[in-house]
Amino acid sequence: MPIRIFVTGGTFDKEYNELDGSLFFKQTHLSEMLALGRSRLEVEINQLMLIDSLEMTEADRALVRDSCASAAEDRIVVTHGTDTMEQTARVLGEANLPKTIVLTGAMIPYKFGSSDGLFNLGSALAFVQSLPHGVYVAMNGKYFGWRNVMKNRQTGLFEPKRPD
Amino acid sequence: MPIRIFVTGGTFDKEYNELDGSLFFKQTHLSEMLALGRSRLEVEINQLMLIDSLEMTEADRALVRDSCASAAEDRIVVTHGTDTMEQTARVLGEANLPKTIVLTGAMIPYKFGSSDGLFNLGSALAFVQSLPHGVYVAMNGKYFGWRNVMKNRQTGLFEPKRPD
Amino acid sequence: MPIRIFVTGGTFDKEYNELDGSLFFKQTHLSEMLALGRSRLEVEINQLMLIDSLEMTEADRALVRDSCASAAEDRIVVTHGTDTMEQTARVLGEANLPKTIVLTGAMIPYKFGSSDGLFNLGSALAFVQSLPHGVYVAMNGKYFGWRNVMKNRQTGLFEPKRPD
Amino acid sequence: MPIRIFVTGGTFDKEYNELDGSLFFKQTHLSEMLALGRSRLEVEINQLMLIDSLEMTEADRALVRDSCASAAEDRIVVTHGTDTMEQTARVLGEANLPKTIVLTGAMIPYKFGSSDGLFNLGSALAFVQSLPHGVYVAMNGKYFGWRNVMKNRQTGLFEPKRPD
Repeated sequence: MPIRIFVTGGTFDKEYNELDGSLFFKQTHLSEMLALGRSRLEVEINQLMLIDSLEMTEADRALVRDSCASAAEDRIVVTHGTDTMEQTARVLGEANLPKTIVLTGAMIPYKFGSSDGLFNLGSALAFVQSLPHGVYVAMNGKYFGWRNVMKNRQTGLFEPKRPD
Repeated sequence: MPIRIFVTGGTFDKEYNELDGSLFFKQTHLSEMLALGRSRLEVEINQLMLIDSLEMTEADRALVRDSCASAAEDRIVVTHGTDTMEQTARVLGEANLPKTIVLTGAMIPYKFGSSDGLFNLGSALAFVQSLPHGVYVAMNGKYFGWRNVMKNRQTGLFEPKRPD
Repeated sequence: MPIRIFVTGGTFDKEYNELDGSLFFKQTHLSEMLALGRSRLEVEINQLMLIDSLEMTEADRALVRDSCASAAEDRIVVTHGTDTMEQTARVLGEANLPKTIVLTGAMIPYKFGSSDGLFNLGSALAFVQSLPHGVYVAMNGKYFGWRNVMKNRQTGLFEPKRPD
Repeated sequence: MPIRIFVTGGTFDKEYNELDGSLFFKQTHLSEMLALGRSRLEVEINQLMLIDSLEMTEADRALVRDSCASAAEDRIVVTHGTDTMEQTARVLGEANLPKTIVLTGAMIPYKFGSSDGLFNLGSALAFVQSLPHGVYVAMNGKYFGWRNVMKNRQTGLFEPKRPD
């Protein structure tokens, strides 16, 4: 059965608008990235939205959750901005779906030479094939269960939450 | 415990010699690739050799096997040329080590813009963390057990061997 | 005698801040670009400022003009944001210096894969060696005298002003 | 009147063959490079051949010369491998055409990230617009008259010939 990829946007897919110098979304680069990686995985790509994750509403997160729930596939990768990735992971985790769902993103847009995006995508697609059912964040080469992950705003790195 | 990475060379690490137009090995790009991927995995990198896998001898493969056997780590990634990756995987597989060993490589040198290397490295590092003990090839976004993998010379893609 | 390069910033030198997703200036990439181009020209690089040209004040432009006037060299390249390049060219042109001065910039930051910066820099350095004294803008492969150049805001291209 | 560009091949246009690890010519990248540089010059591109300049015969050089002679344009850029660029420049120079002809090339293929090609192309197109009639080599940011240029095989750099 193919792997489902839900695109939500995030830094991954940002581009530089040369007319006004802003960063914007034009289209997802997922297919291009999979071609570059010579991926031969069967995947189905759906673009749910194309937004900065700071602008993601609870309705948006519900759409991601419902899309995961109703997808025929039980292996799902969600591309997502890093700023609120842990919140969407929580919404997905609490839905307690019998699926392996991996969220990933990038710190630098794919279109800029120095992006971590291709590394993260390779990582997420591997984890989704090999981890048991559950919801995970795949960043910095690691994976984190949804209950114990946060982005450190100072370093830009994902890490386990501090022990209480 | 950290992940051990054994570097053997392969297309991954080839560079263009601008003085004579040949392709050659100068140094491994593994550290640079891990930095680009913002990897925060604990890894130990050892360069065993830096050669084209078509030139790899049985003695070379024995060195890879013995290095895997004697490493303190039980999670090991081996970077390798794609042309004889399946043969080294066989030597490692027949050693039957209680470890997870993942071989990966690239079709295009990392230093050339259009390389699959970063995707494959992300993928291999994820598989090595999540697959049970065994020897695997990670290419094209997939993983293959060492007993059932071959490189298709016509397409450049890895695939299961034909059923007998 | 070497060529003088005055750096003022502009899109050329913008980078992506992965912690907050903004574009910012960290340092000039001129030396790196010259190395990539295998340039063996004798150049002296001075960074006068590192700003977006929309923020350039009349005092800033006076500093560029005075720096050109007092430089020992009579061949000068000024890297500059494209939005107000024509205004700085006018200030330099009206100073009527016995020098060849070429302004150039980029539509896309050098650090992003698809930049026109390296092409423009090669072009500007060639024009500064071969054009007679005067003040020019080098963009889109062309050169324009300072009296008859404007950036078309719709297309992002430089072109002669409409005839009155 | 447009600028004529004659493509002969050279490192500029080499690509990596991922099936056998060799370098080969598939097609010229000139149009792609001009688009990247946001060039708005009127150019006519003709591919005369697509070969390594070490394999260029006297008949090939005669074809380049005759093509330059019969072209309607008097401003011509010739892309060329660096190894025998000075020899083709001599053949063109001795033809003594009333035209400005600039030869350029690259030390690293355009398709590999670290290419000098875009810089050199920007430079050659600027020189061809601004230099008087004659035959020139544009490399390393400089231009050289055809009578006094050689490639230094040790350094890969172009320089004037040693004085006798």
